[in-house]
Amino acid sequence: MRDHGGDIDTAQARFGGTDWIDLSTGINRAPYPLPSLPTEVWTALPTYAATARLLTAAGAAYQSQAPILAVAGAQAAIQLIPKLSAPARARILTPTYNEHVAALRSAGWQVDEVTTLAALEGADLAVVVNPNNPDGRSHAPEDLLRLAARVGRLVVDESFADARPDLSLASKAAQGRLVVLRSFGKFYGLAGMRLGFILGSDADIAALTEMAGPWPVSGPAIAIGTAALSDRAWAEATVARLRADVARLDGLAQSARWKLVGGTELFRLYDTQSATAAQEKLARRQIWTRMFPYSDRWLRLGLPGQPAEWDRLAAALQD
Amino acid sequence: MRDHGGDIDTAQARFGGTDWIDLSTGINRAPYPLPSLPTEVWTALPTYAATARLLTAAGAAYQSQAPILAVAGAQAAIQLIPKLSAPARARILTPTYNEHVAALRSAGWQVDEVTTLAALEGADLAVVVNPNNPDGRSHAPEDLLRLAARVGRLVVDESFADARPDLSLASKAAQGRLVVLRSFGKFYGLAGMRLGFILGSDADIAALTEMAGPWPVSGPAIAIGTAALSDRAWAEATVARLRADVARLDGLAQSARWKLVGGTELFRLYDTQSATAAQEKLARRQIWTRMFPYSDRWLRLGLPGQPAEWDRLAAALQD
Repeated sequence: MRDHGGDIDTAQARFGGTDWIDLSTGINRAPYPLPSLPTEVWTALPTYAATARLLTAAGAAYQSQAPILAVAGAQAAIQLIPKLSAPARARILTPTYNEHVAALRSAGWQVDEVTTLAALEGADLAVVVNPNNPDGRSHAPEDLLRLAARVGRLVVDESFADARPDLSLASKAAQGRLVVLRSFGKFYGLAGMRLGFILGSDADIAALTEMAGPWPVSGPAIAIGTAALSDRAWAEATVARLRADVARLDGLAQSARWKLVGGTELFRLYDTQSATAAQEKLARRQIWTRMFPYSDRWLRLGLPGQPAEWDRLAAALQD
Repeated sequence: MRDHGGDIDTAQARFGGTDWIDLSTGINRAPYPLPSLPTEVWTALPTYAATARLLTAAGAAYQSQAPILAVAGAQAAIQLIPKLSAPARARILTPTYNEHVAALRSAGWQVDEVTTLAALEGADLAVVVNPNNPDGRSHAPEDLLRLAARVGRLVVDESFADARPDLSLASKAAQGRLVVLRSFGKFYGLAGMRLGFILGSDADIAALTEMAGPWPVSGPAIAIGTAALSDRAWAEATVARLRADVARLDGLAQSARWKLVGGTELFRLYDTQSATAAQEKLARRQIWTRMFPYSDRWLRLGLPGQPAEWDRLAAALQD
């Protein structure tokens, strides 16, 4: 298993305790309130009609009329996309989420990791996470569209784009060379539900649908996803709340003399001088964070949810 | 989309009404009672520890110590298995569930449909559904083990084997040429939850785990699956109840002069002389059943659940 945030078991095993605040992921800790669910979503196979309603809600939320497929999390999309064409030469803009490279290599692709958008040009398949995880680096849609014309296929992972519709290429995904991924669980705070979307050309979505097979998404995920994606008032209020929380977290970090590297509305990346020391300092107060194998200074934090979580974080940073 | 049971929308569109009894699948209509779920199963990514507990419960329920992987339904297993090796020549014992052939062909396999176990010998990959859907035909484990030694890989789909542990090869799945699929949702009546398992050799399960990627199963499915698979008293009572219900359904069918073709504890297949007429007769009482494109006489019925469902079926058959 590759290195990930979110596995609180690891923190518990290392530091003890059970009352952990998990800030090791970019998952919203004030989740969409769970609606009550009809029994049928558990007992029956999801119907075409229910799935169609979900896709309509997702298209509206992502402001796109492109062909779209629902899968069991953005990760499921990452597993499928390498199989859209025969393995060749892929390039990925790094540092970024490690599962893209892993899934491509596992499917037989030769993958080069590059650090500029220009260096992606000419690849048979290029991957850009926009905005990027963990550093929040973002790219203008027009730059990515230009890039799309210069690669075999451009995969844009918009897992952290919910608060930045201005960055999204979802509305352009029907054009042949572009595939756009969206995560449901991060912004809506329901990562355990496993729901994500792929938008792309008719041909790509048809091929991915065939690979995913029938019923790739659970009935509860379809029902909750449809309700949540249709609730634009909640989404707008959440974006506003997250922006305020980001400013608050950056302020706390500044007091601790951590320097902001970048981030999104769901996580912040700080240069802490010593990631190990900073992680242990917070872990002693049972707050879990994310380090990266390629940096001994960077620490990534998701945003606390409830007031008590903020209090504990503030206290930990003052230790 | 291929022809399936379970899409009650189709029945509603054709015959009207909303109060349908869906007997078009082999899903238990008296499901495992849903336990209350901690919020974390929705909000957090599933932990390794939670998944490990699920796999332990599944291994115990399936009486196997073989390497095992949880996926989002037996269908997800059917999508992955064709990618375990380079496409070559597959054979499948038919008639059977149509998704095996579809997934294999889609992945580039040449698939021959055969009608005897002996005709599977020599295939690079052979598929047997045991007991079989829709006709309930079953094969002794020792016959399948003999077959396994004479094919490149033998896939045994045990989606309907919960009530027949005597038929299961799950305990032998660690040997190299055998891959065993199990469905959770059918016997436990929770098909919308999407949970299934693959048992096989270390090498095959490692490769399938890599293909499935992290977090293929939802948090609610892990929690409910662990509770249900650990509850052997419920399983034993359910097998006893299903056996009595099978006798009752066969009795009703006999009164309607339908002839039993075969079946399992979760569905029965009848020769009705005219499947179209029989299906419409029940559909007029809003009971949905399954026809097959390759037979104009066969009708498959799942078992009714609540007493009112039995009453309506009995009345419909007397029309």
